[in-house]
Amino acid sequence: MVHTEYLWFTTKQRQEFVRITDHVRAIVSRSGIRDGMALVSAMHITSGVYVNDWEDGLIHDFQVWLEKLAPAGQPYRHHQTGEDNADAHLKRTLMGHQVLVPITNGDLDLGPWEQIFYAEFDGQRRKRVIIKVIGDK
Amino acid sequence: MVHTEYLWFTTKQRQEFVRITDHVRAIVSRSGIRDGMALVSAMHITSGVYVNDWEDGLIHDFQVWLEKLAPAGQPYRHHQTGEDNADAHLKRTLMGHQVLVPITNGDLDLGPWEQIFYAEFDGQRRKRVIIKVIGDK
Amino acid sequence: MVHTEYLWFTTKQRQEFVRITDHVRAIVSRSGIRDGMALVSAMHITSGVYVNDWEDGLIHDFQVWLEKLAPAGQPYRHHQTGEDNADAHLKRTLMGHQVLVPITNGDLDLGPWEQIFYAEFDGQRRKRVIIKVIGDK
Repeated sequence: MVHTEYLWFTTKQRQEFVRITDHVRAIVSRSGIRDGMALVSAMHITSGVYVNDWEDGLIHDFQVWLEKLAPAGQPYRHHQTGEDNADAHLKRTLMGHQVLVPITNGDLDLGPWEQIFYAEFDGQRRKRVIIKVIGDK
Repeated sequence: MVHTEYLWFTTKQRQEFVRITDHVRAIVSRSGIRDGMALVSAMHITSGVYVNDWEDGLIHDFQVWLEKLAPAGQPYRHHQTGEDNADAHLKRTLMGHQVLVPITNGDLDLGPWEQIFYAEFDGQRRKRVIIKVIGDK
Repeated sequence: MVHTEYLWFTTKQRQEFVRITDHVRAIVSRSGIRDGMALVSAMHITSGVYVNDWEDGLIHDFQVWLEKLAPAGQPYRHHQTGEDNADAHLKRTLMGHQVLVPITNGDLDLGPWEQIFYAEFDGQRRKRVIIKVIGDK
């Protein structure tokens, strides 16, 4: 059994991390699937999806760290096409662009501190995430 | 058809990589699933799961490399909460926190050198990995 | 329902990124699965699979960036075994070694710029990728 929904985001900031655990949980509930997994996957190549802590300090640390490992404002060759977002492609690669969330007894089977985040690196426009739930009713 | 088990780890070292290929293979065998995939996913946000070589030198190289890209002992903002493990969150992000292992003819369908590892970055306490097998009998 | 195929690659260069979106689409079509997901996973531990832009400048940027974060020619301990490819293991870890592609209405459900790539970091010999499609007809 397979159930599909999409989430749309238009972030206010160019770079912004949005907690989406509750959205994914609601979709799993609507699917009626009791045992299986939910794929949560960014459909744009300058955003990601990851699982980690819901703590503002750590989210700040992630963003500082990504800027160090994959800085904006470098002479990327991609920018010769008129784009200015090569760093966003690299940052989303470091964070990952999809997660597979286990489902047990009709709910997300997450550890004590696991939260699902949408990581936007080139926002301020409409972008989409697909959620595909697969498993048994 | 879906089958779920959990593995528990209490590592002796704070950082330790543990080969779990045989544990995953045994769970797949118990599931009775002959064709499908097994999700192997850390349930804590300071540990990961990855596939790579079972060679001590390379494991050492991974650990030296992670320390360079995501060093401990920095003034991370996360530490203002009383935590001291921000680097563990970053390191597990680089290694990945889950893999999906293909299953064919009732066994893991791995390449010649693929081994599954649990990567602990803040251990010495009980932590858990979920294995969820999905597919056909 | 599960369908499995393998893709073989022998790249001309040691490091080479190969677009495989159309190969994956053809396999999904042959599977007859209309709703589900396709696992695309490297079976060797010095190559990866990732989703990103089909733009030569960006592919160049990725390769320069990987060389900076995971350089070749360092005194890696792995090389004491006679190997010389420790950097390939690190680079494939940064790019990821597998993706799960959603399938809707019998086709890949990709965003406007998503393309699937095979990333070879130690090529010039035969290496394999597994594609496993799971879902409903």
